[in-house]
Amino acid sequence: MSGVDVVFLGTGGSVPTRSRGLPCVALRRDGDLVLFDCGEGTQRQMMQAGLGFNRPTMVLISHLHGDHLLGLPGLLQTMSSFARDKELELFGPVGVAAYLKSLHRTLGFVSTFPVKVRELKPNASVEKNGYKVKTARAKHDITCLGYAIEESDRPGRFHPNQAKRLGVPEGPLWKELQSGREVNVEGKIVKPQQVTGPSRKSLKIVYAIDTRPCEAVRRLARDADLLMHDGGFAEDRKDKAKAYYHSTATEAASLAKQCRARRLALVHISAVTRDDSILLREARRVFKQTIVPKDFDVISLERPK
Amino acid sequence: MSGVDVVFLGTGGSVPTRSRGLPCVALRRDGDLVLFDCGEGTQRQMMQAGLGFNRPTMVLISHLHGDHLLGLPGLLQTMSSFARDKELELFGPVGVAAYLKSLHRTLGFVSTFPVKVRELKPNASVEKNGYKVKTARAKHDITCLGYAIEESDRPGRFHPNQAKRLGVPEGPLWKELQSGREVNVEGKIVKPQQVTGPSRKSLKIVYAIDTRPCEAVRRLARDADLLMHDGGFAEDRKDKAKAYYHSTATEAASLAKQCRARRLALVHISAVTRDDSILLREARRVFKQTIVPKDFDVISLERPK
Repeated sequence: MSGVDVVFLGTGGSVPTRSRGLPCVALRRDGDLVLFDCGEGTQRQMMQAGLGFNRPTMVLISHLHGDHLLGLPGLLQTMSSFARDKELELFGPVGVAAYLKSLHRTLGFVSTFPVKVRELKPNASVEKNGYKVKTARAKHDITCLGYAIEESDRPGRFHPNQAKRLGVPEGPLWKELQSGREVNVEGKIVKPQQVTGPSRKSLKIVYAIDTRPCEAVRRLARDADLLMHDGGFAEDRKDKAKAYYHSTATEAASLAKQCRARRLALVHISAVTRDDSILLREARRVFKQTIVPKDFDVISLERPK
Repeated sequence: MSGVDVVFLGTGGSVPTRSRGLPCVALRRDGDLVLFDCGEGTQRQMMQAGLGFNRPTMVLISHLHGDHLLGLPGLLQTMSSFARDKELELFGPVGVAAYLKSLHRTLGFVSTFPVKVRELKPNASVEKNGYKVKTARAKHDITCLGYAIEESDRPGRFHPNQAKRLGVPEGPLWKELQSGREVNVEGKIVKPQQVTGPSRKSLKIVYAIDTRPCEAVRRLARDADLLMHDGGFAEDRKDKAKAYYHSTATEAASLAKQCRARRLALVHISAVTRDDSILLREARRVFKQTIVPKDFDVISLERPK
């Protein structure tokens, strides 16, 4: 697979509607699953989307308002019912461990698999296999994390002719060079840089929900291939967006433009917004590459060639 | 309104499916709402069913397994978002208050309305306006309550001719007699019994989920107009039903027959049961008046005339 599928499982705001579920976005990435938030109903949305419950999974919780994590215990229970054995990683702000612990205590359920909880602060950077998870402090009324999934750059393109010219025979030594390791050919060292082009960019995906536009998210989202940003309010409700620490579609679009994102997806669509074409129109005036996904929409991001 | 609407909001078992939500059944009763259990997703099912969030509401939780009450915090939050002001009553087994309290503590949310929690033991009887809530100990692996909503008998039919014959003039005095109070007509006492027929039966509705067939539920459900009983397993999985403290469709049907219920609705349909016509066929062999409701099915129970 040469990219990442972004599956919008719940595109609603703090209150669901008939058509929009509570916040959750899934990334399907080389067989792994990353969930941004886990609103009530996530497990069922995952079923509808055919995502499966036994993949390597990482859940990133933005903040401790119920609409963003009330789907977590049910998801863990259902994974247990399906006899999941793989560890699940859960990242979230300080307090997420206590939340889960209290549910274990009051409802007494036990997972069939390990749940590794890690509480993150803003400006954290966690190294994973092939990518980093970075956080920034979003601007909400409680601590709220924006997340970036930043894939490591891939090695540059391998040039077979150059390798042959340097006397490296086709076979295992090529593989070594392609993996970024130097090789010894009859006493002569050949370095990967001698036989490969410049390293190639990978994907950067950013999720910032329940936030006013702010500098920390702007920095986090610089050059993102996809920025998912709070933007469910139309301009005529700008005062509400401000009062509740959310953003208008236009504000999200300005931020996307400023940080040179490639694409913007508006999330946390307020239940009061009956016609999302208004959001789209307003945002696109500022930033053309905007979409307003519906539940179960999928966008496929290709890694640059 | 001369009856009760039973709205099946979630007919699934401990794991939802694409078509069956987690356990919840709503009764619409003279403008009030009674919810049996409140599985994850209940708030959204209520929206789909158009039930509204500001009615006088009573929630009856059967037991503390997550699939039966993980929808509660989200429901309370959404009601608050809609600025509900009416009190909500919550009944459940011991532990339900601690569950709610722990969520208030770890997620810090506050309702806009009072939530009156009352922990009930088996064999409780709570007097409400016009009906009783009764409990029985279901047979599960933790304390689990079966519930009966038992409406009070209504006054007998009023006989105008009889009232006239006794000298009671049409008007406010008739109303008094119809309300069960005696009246004084020029020094002569007339009692309600003299002008009304025998008192009339009302409805009895029973909910017993996550249970093996047992004597306590059988007693609770005697002469029920509707018995909703755990019965999501077919006979070929009888051993599983037993092992997990559930019931087969046939076992539920036998119990319905023994307690002379008028109608049986099978609930907690296991996700493994792909074809519910098997359940229906098996149950109807024993008890003809069986149904296997789907989510959003509504049945209207009329009070006997």
